[in-house]
Amino acid sequence: MKYSQFFLPTLKEIPAEAELVSHKLMLRAGLIRKLAAGLYTFMPMGLKVLQNIKQIVRREMNRSGALEILMPMVQPAELWQESGRWEKYGSELLRLKDRHQRDFCLGPTHEEVVTDLVRKEVRSYRDLPINLYQVQTKFRDEIRPRFGVMRSREFVMKDGYSFHADMESLDETYRKMYDCYCRIFESCGLDFRAVEADTGAIGGDASHEFMVLADSGEDSIAICKSCRFAANLELAQVILSDSQESPEELSELKKVHTPQKGTIDEVTEFLGKSPENSVKTLVYLVNEKIVMALLRGDHQLNEIKLARFLGVDEVAMCDSDLIEIRLNAPVGFLGPVGLPKDVTIIADNSVKSLNNFITGANERDYHFINANWERDIPLPTFTDIRNITANDKCPKCQGDIEIRKGIEVGHIFKLGTKYSSALGAVYLDKEGKTHPIIMGCYGIGVSRIIAACIEQNNDENGIIFPQSISPFKVIITPVDMRSQDVLNYADELYKCISELGIEVLLDDRDERAGVKFKDSELLGIPVRITIGKLFKEKNEVEFFIRQEKTSENIHASCVIDKIKEIYYN
Amino acid sequence: MKYSQFFLPTLKEIPAEAELVSHKLMLRAGLIRKLAAGLYTFMPMGLKVLQNIKQIVRREMNRSGALEILMPMVQPAELWQESGRWEKYGSELLRLKDRHQRDFCLGPTHEEVVTDLVRKEVRSYRDLPINLYQVQTKFRDEIRPRFGVMRSREFVMKDGYSFHADMESLDETYRKMYDCYCRIFESCGLDFRAVEADTGAIGGDASHEFMVLADSGEDSIAICKSCRFAANLELAQVILSDSQESPEELSELKKVHTPQKGTIDEVTEFLGKSPENSVKTLVYLVNEKIVMALLRGDHQLNEIKLARFLGVDEVAMCDSDLIEIRLNAPVGFLGPVGLPKDVTIIADNSVKSLNNFITGANERDYHFINANWERDIPLPTFTDIRNITANDKCPKCQGDIEIRKGIEVGHIFKLGTKYSSALGAVYLDKEGKTHPIIMGCYGIGVSRIIAACIEQNNDENGIIFPQSISPFKVIITPVDMRSQDVLNYADELYKCISELGIEVLLDDRDERAGVKFKDSELLGIPVRITIGKLFKEKNEVEFFIRQEKTSENIHASCVIDKIKEIYYN
Repeated sequence: MKYSQFFLPTLKEIPAEAELVSHKLMLRAGLIRKLAAGLYTFMPMGLKVLQNIKQIVRREMNRSGALEILMPMVQPAELWQESGRWEKYGSELLRLKDRHQRDFCLGPTHEEVVTDLVRKEVRSYRDLPINLYQVQTKFRDEIRPRFGVMRSREFVMKDGYSFHADMESLDETYRKMYDCYCRIFESCGLDFRAVEADTGAIGGDASHEFMVLADSGEDSIAICKSCRFAANLELAQVILSDSQESPEELSELKKVHTPQKGTIDEVTEFLGKSPENSVKTLVYLVNEKIVMALLRGDHQLNEIKLARFLGVDEVAMCDSDLIEIRLNAPVGFLGPVGLPKDVTIIADNSVKSLNNFITGANERDYHFINANWERDIPLPTFTDIRNITANDKCPKCQGDIEIRKGIEVGHIFKLGTKYSSALGAVYLDKEGKTHPIIMGCYGIGVSRIIAACIEQNNDENGIIFPQSISPFKVIITPVDMRSQDVLNYADELYKCISELGIEVLLDDRDERAGVKFKDSELLGIPVRITIGKLFKEKNEVEFFIRQEKTSENIHASCVIDKIKEIYYN
Repeated sequence: MKYSQFFLPTLKEIPAEAELVSHKLMLRAGLIRKLAAGLYTFMPMGLKVLQNIKQIVRREMNRSGALEILMPMVQPAELWQESGRWEKYGSELLRLKDRHQRDFCLGPTHEEVVTDLVRKEVRSYRDLPINLYQVQTKFRDEIRPRFGVMRSREFVMKDGYSFHADMESLDETYRKMYDCYCRIFESCGLDFRAVEADTGAIGGDASHEFMVLADSGEDSIAICKSCRFAANLELAQVILSDSQESPEELSELKKVHTPQKGTIDEVTEFLGKSPENSVKTLVYLVNEKIVMALLRGDHQLNEIKLARFLGVDEVAMCDSDLIEIRLNAPVGFLGPVGLPKDVTIIADNSVKSLNNFITGANERDYHFINANWERDIPLPTFTDIRNITANDKCPKCQGDIEIRKGIEVGHIFKLGTKYSSALGAVYLDKEGKTHPIIMGCYGIGVSRIIAACIEQNNDENGIIFPQSISPFKVIITPVDMRSQDVLNYADELYKCISELGIEVLLDDRDERAGVKFKDSELLGIPVRITIGKLFKEKNEVEFFIRQEKTSENIHASCVIDKIKEIYYN
């Protein structure tokens, strides 16, 4: 493609509307333009990136045996009423009426439609498994669309759905999809992690989110620096560190006056100690009973873990009035010393090894110091009820843990029979008995990948596209547009590279070299070949690698070999 | 692809809901399934065809210099209000409100959105021309969706828009698009014609419709049997035939009693003559004046031509009461003999050569026979005011004309400044003066092409796909699934053909040969290789060409060469 014949309006100014760097750069580099809130047009440059990603997605999905279909974006209300989501789904579901006043919605997802399709076609276990996917425009009426294509209302999604006669078959396809997703995100050049996600009642390894690591991410995840372990902060298992400090000699339990020091930070600072040597107490009401949760002062309670341990769906903190009535002690000064026996105490594993610690005295403005297990407090139940921290070790390999931010780009989920039961999608087994079909679903935010990728790959000069999804692989930048030799060589190079099947942009604009350089770096094209001064003097060109910011001068005759070396490996 | 691993439910029964053969076959061959009225899911087989067509469209559009973009399907009402179409566009425009009660519509077309895009980016004539297109899902809320994907509500369209500083530039791009469209439809294997369409006020060669010739088409077109000439029936120019019969000797004008014979057929039959030797009279009221149109009895008036000749937008027939008052003559017995001089008479060219003809006597139950020009009737103005017929000659090459039915699959149109003026999309010329940008638009019904193609390519056994868009190019049909030799050879062949980059379907189902044959013909795959009895006896297979319904037995070792011969030419 020749720049002069392309539609590629770049912006020098940083668009005021954009917060995220990816949004700014996508606007500046002419990848997208805004039509209305959450609605973007993909410009030729942006669409090329989108299509490269689509191609990778399709290649790997097909390779893993999934079959592509295309379902309508406009969906009849009846199916959503059958599944119960017509009422339950919030305002993100854009409901509309056709000319005959019949109810429809714009598809934010396609579980209902695909289950309807399959229930009409599948009769027997012999027809299963089936694994279907589509690459399609979706609509979710976000209350506050923002960050460009990161959280837009209309977006491109790859959504897939699998159908099985038994859990083993679902597990097999789920594993295939997991591997397929890893290949897709690797092929897109992303630094990502597959993260176990909370699946509520289903539990286990029934759901994974694929997270691109980037500071602007909205989700916190714990990743291991040594292995591929990753988990949502709230789900990561905490293991006891091997290196426990040797216990101090037990000192005498003392009640000390800590006037108005109702927080851990206040009381430990007041007493000249660190929060690591204190135990904080949180009180929950579970099935009308008081449950006291004990944590090290610097740790954070994880309510999901607590609820799971207690075998309930969720837990709610006890309100302070009720605490004062039931425990006869003021919030801010609670502690496990001298409690009535009917109070359930759950302590996090990490408080077990503490001794001579600080804790509330269940009396306003007083704390204990030098509290110790068994001597002062009966041993409670110890378990893992806190969030993992950067000081913890990987539960898989004992490596160091890092807390990072992630952008979700994919999600795989064992649905079970939620939709098939609701819609009556059943199959007959070998004995002729009817069962609901077991389902899995698998989504990728195709357009969001562009934004996530740019969040992860940029510098002060612009985008740094990974080779695989870059709209052009090479940009040729002739400097002196008045030299026929330069133009001839540029044209020749352009043709040769094109003939290799490598997409190349020839910057044939009559612009200053500075403008061309700035644009090429903004656009993030991996390789730039500058035909400048040295071309006339020594028949050399500058070979610039965007990612490494390195350049070298090479003889004009070596350019094609070098390009092949980069792109044919 | 192996049949057993594909999702390809074929139907033996003819679906009751379908009228057109393409609709029936698309359902039976498992290409589509209905979700709701006018909403269809493309199944894996159907999507393959759709993608083959998309690929052809993109290849040729890119080749002709157009740039692909992707605009949102959900469009803000404001732009449609600016263009005036929010009010004017009928109920096919599906209007909806988002969660903030703001008005939007589902895009049936994208003139407003693309003009908005360009007005924000283009400043100068130097930024022009621009030619943008997209391949996208559109929605038109048809009052009566039918014929499957031929007239569905949601469909895939290629819509393109070009922007120019002057008419020469528009003409050039228009011509390029015309050629590009011809290449696209040729590549899709369609028998089509580019037809000059009515463009109302713009006139001239400002619009062409691309029509696939098929009996089920809704439009009548005149095509030449010798050259590529084609025109909408109502627009085709009629030329005078060279071979005029030599005139009879003039007979005496006679008024004859023709009781209750008010139509041409009645009166000519009554008088023992043919309609070709009669003149029928139609009366129009144009600007309050009576205009009488004369036609040969067997011809049909073309109101568009009449209006154009009279220099008015449209003409309306005069009602019979008014005719009787103004002409003092009854409808059914009108004629040009003895009329008041203030009646304008326009006669079709073909009545000029008539003599001794029949015409109304302007008196109830009477006609004249042996009427003749000049002697009985002053010569009126002769011009072309009728529809072309199969007895006419091609206005371009004098070849024979045929009247055919057509299915519109593409439309190109010189828009002029309609949208750019309304939306203020302007450019500065060399002198710094502001002008509205001149536009063209170019559409292809991508999903409709599948239906149109099947209308044109089918027989009693099913679809006959042209090679280029066929979902698979070859189907391998092993007959004896219990023979390991047969299965081994089938697998080997499957691998070899796949490695050639040719899409092949291996029918590995444990079904009777008859079922496999029926399905393969229903699916319309161009080449079938049957591994049957002869394989064991003589190492031969049957090579069946779907289009020609011919088969030959060839040695197993020759199959690959024969496939190459067919697909690599």
